[in-house]
Amino acid sequence: MYENIALVGATGAVGRIVLEQIVQRKLPYRSLRLLASQRSVGTEVRVGGQAVTVELLHPGAFKGVDLVIASTPDEVSQEFVPWAVDEGAVVVDESGYWRMNPNVPLVIPEVNPEAVRNHQGIIASPNCSTTQMVVALAPLHRFARVRRVVVSTYQATSGAGTAGNEELFLSVAEELKGKTLAPKTFQHPIGFNLIPQIGSNKFEGYTSEEMKMVYETRKIMEDQQIQVCPTCVRVPVTIGHSESILVETERHISIDQAKRLFSEAEGITVVDDLDSHVYPMPRDCEGKDDVFVGRIRRDISSENGLAFWCVSDNLRKGAATNAVQIAELLQRSSCT
Amino acid sequence: MYENIALVGATGAVGRIVLEQIVQRKLPYRSLRLLASQRSVGTEVRVGGQAVTVELLHPGAFKGVDLVIASTPDEVSQEFVPWAVDEGAVVVDESGYWRMNPNVPLVIPEVNPEAVRNHQGIIASPNCSTTQMVVALAPLHRFARVRRVVVSTYQATSGAGTAGNEELFLSVAEELKGKTLAPKTFQHPIGFNLIPQIGSNKFEGYTSEEMKMVYETRKIMEDQQIQVCPTCVRVPVTIGHSESILVETERHISIDQAKRLFSEAEGITVVDDLDSHVYPMPRDCEGKDDVFVGRIRRDISSENGLAFWCVSDNLRKGAATNAVQIAELLQRSSCT
Repeated sequence: MYENIALVGATGAVGRIVLEQIVQRKLPYRSLRLLASQRSVGTEVRVGGQAVTVELLHPGAFKGVDLVIASTPDEVSQEFVPWAVDEGAVVVDESGYWRMNPNVPLVIPEVNPEAVRNHQGIIASPNCSTTQMVVALAPLHRFARVRRVVVSTYQATSGAGTAGNEELFLSVAEELKGKTLAPKTFQHPIGFNLIPQIGSNKFEGYTSEEMKMVYETRKIMEDQQIQVCPTCVRVPVTIGHSESILVETERHISIDQAKRLFSEAEGITVVDDLDSHVYPMPRDCEGKDDVFVGRIRRDISSENGLAFWCVSDNLRKGAATNAVQIAELLQRSSCT
Repeated sequence: MYENIALVGATGAVGRIVLEQIVQRKLPYRSLRLLASQRSVGTEVRVGGQAVTVELLHPGAFKGVDLVIASTPDEVSQEFVPWAVDEGAVVVDESGYWRMNPNVPLVIPEVNPEAVRNHQGIIASPNCSTTQMVVALAPLHRFARVRRVVVSTYQATSGAGTAGNEELFLSVAEELKGKTLAPKTFQHPIGFNLIPQIGSNKFEGYTSEEMKMVYETRKIMEDQQIQVCPTCVRVPVTIGHSESILVETERHISIDQAKRLFSEAEGITVVDDLDSHVYPMPRDCEGKDDVFVGRIRRDISSENGLAFWCVSDNLRKGAATNAVQIAELLQRSSCT
């Protein structure tokens, strides 16, 4: 089962990496179809040496498909996912549209793989900024119960797709000439600047991106008592989201325990030697699948707090890798 | 009094702005001398239309000088400040060397102007990242007593002087060509990257820059009970430090009260309309003297918390402007 696969949005920034990951991770499949909107139909895409032609995403397109991996905007997902489910496929969806639906498991394979079992045709992959944070928090939560998280993000322009990176490059090039590029993808010029808004005003002055970090964290960790105060900021970096995280736990965690918990956790690499100027940075995490954690230190402002710095490739673990890992999980669970 | 002025380090990134500020703010002086190391001696600098020649910084150079404004590295300050004091001058020092000395007032004119009275020849101006944060916290502290601050910074390359900005421009230009510039001023390439280290490893995994934000905040606010957990990060922005601040207070502050307190405080400009994409950004704060505050919202993770975003030109209020304001304070206090 799950061997007749369709990808939706395969020509986008994340979709391209999903394809790469399918090849690199050797996800087994009998057939692989690429579906997209009219604009991309007919495009040939190389998948592990084979040319695959992009077909039209339409009702009926999922006949004979068992498994869909989809990277599309929310409104596209809202429309096509019911077609795919009606036609008998299970959809792993990376959009934000289905994540908080109580009938849809929201899954990070290292954190809550068991949730995948309860799906009713749709499994959601979390928002990029949530995923890397929750991967890092999960071992601490299992050991000492996370009570509160204060997080400030430093989010890369590729979070806004290929157009985001192009706008950063153009904006920086203009600024170097003493000019300013009129922004299109972002609300303001991004070259040599910071934009403390990702998404729209959602709840009491918090943005939609920030509230995803609140709601999705609680759902994945299955604990509605976890309090999260997020600030999401776009920075002039192309790939790799970074997060300054302060976590308060019910039980005390020593620094040695924290480092051991991080080191032993699946999907986390500890990079932490301040004296040698060693810590996670976006440029070192690009193209890697792990969540990188460093600057691990006790919170000097509370009793049971821990501060750390967390970086991950937002297109990989933050999106494509997590979706492909969910597909692997489905395939494995159907074998037993 | 305080009308025979000497500037030390007038050819540096901050020193140049001190000179601009002296002219713009019309700081009265009878004589103005520029002192620097051998390398800059003989350089002519324009001050309000007058050419002033840089002289050698040496013992004896401060004869006849009442007031010194100094922007130098710590080790230079350590050496020359005692000469200046011995020769009868009062020194307003922007370096980190004297700040925590119990005989040296650490002054932000909007926050603790009265501290200037107790000087013994030296008055220190705080670190750039501390100054803008404390300007923003002070009205909240007066109203509701600040108990705890969690702050993540997004610090501009000009914090490392003119060389910092040059390295950012070169690094970005190389990255645009697909190459990487070997770093000199910073520990790692800064173009399209973040470096979560400013200063050296100082205390339990916190850097010297971070511990400045702890110790200096307590000293300026005259409250050793204030707990601060800082994370300081260098970002690829030339001018303007940004800070994501979460503050917990003893008394509750409503959002309306917070906005009123910020708006009424001297030196703060509120820029806060998320629906219209209006908030402080580095590119809008460059060349301005105020501390800009926005994204003001209640902390959804605690009872008495408040979250906000704070940006200021690190060379202005973070350095030059604050020093010139201290000089104005000295001049005013000597008139009464």
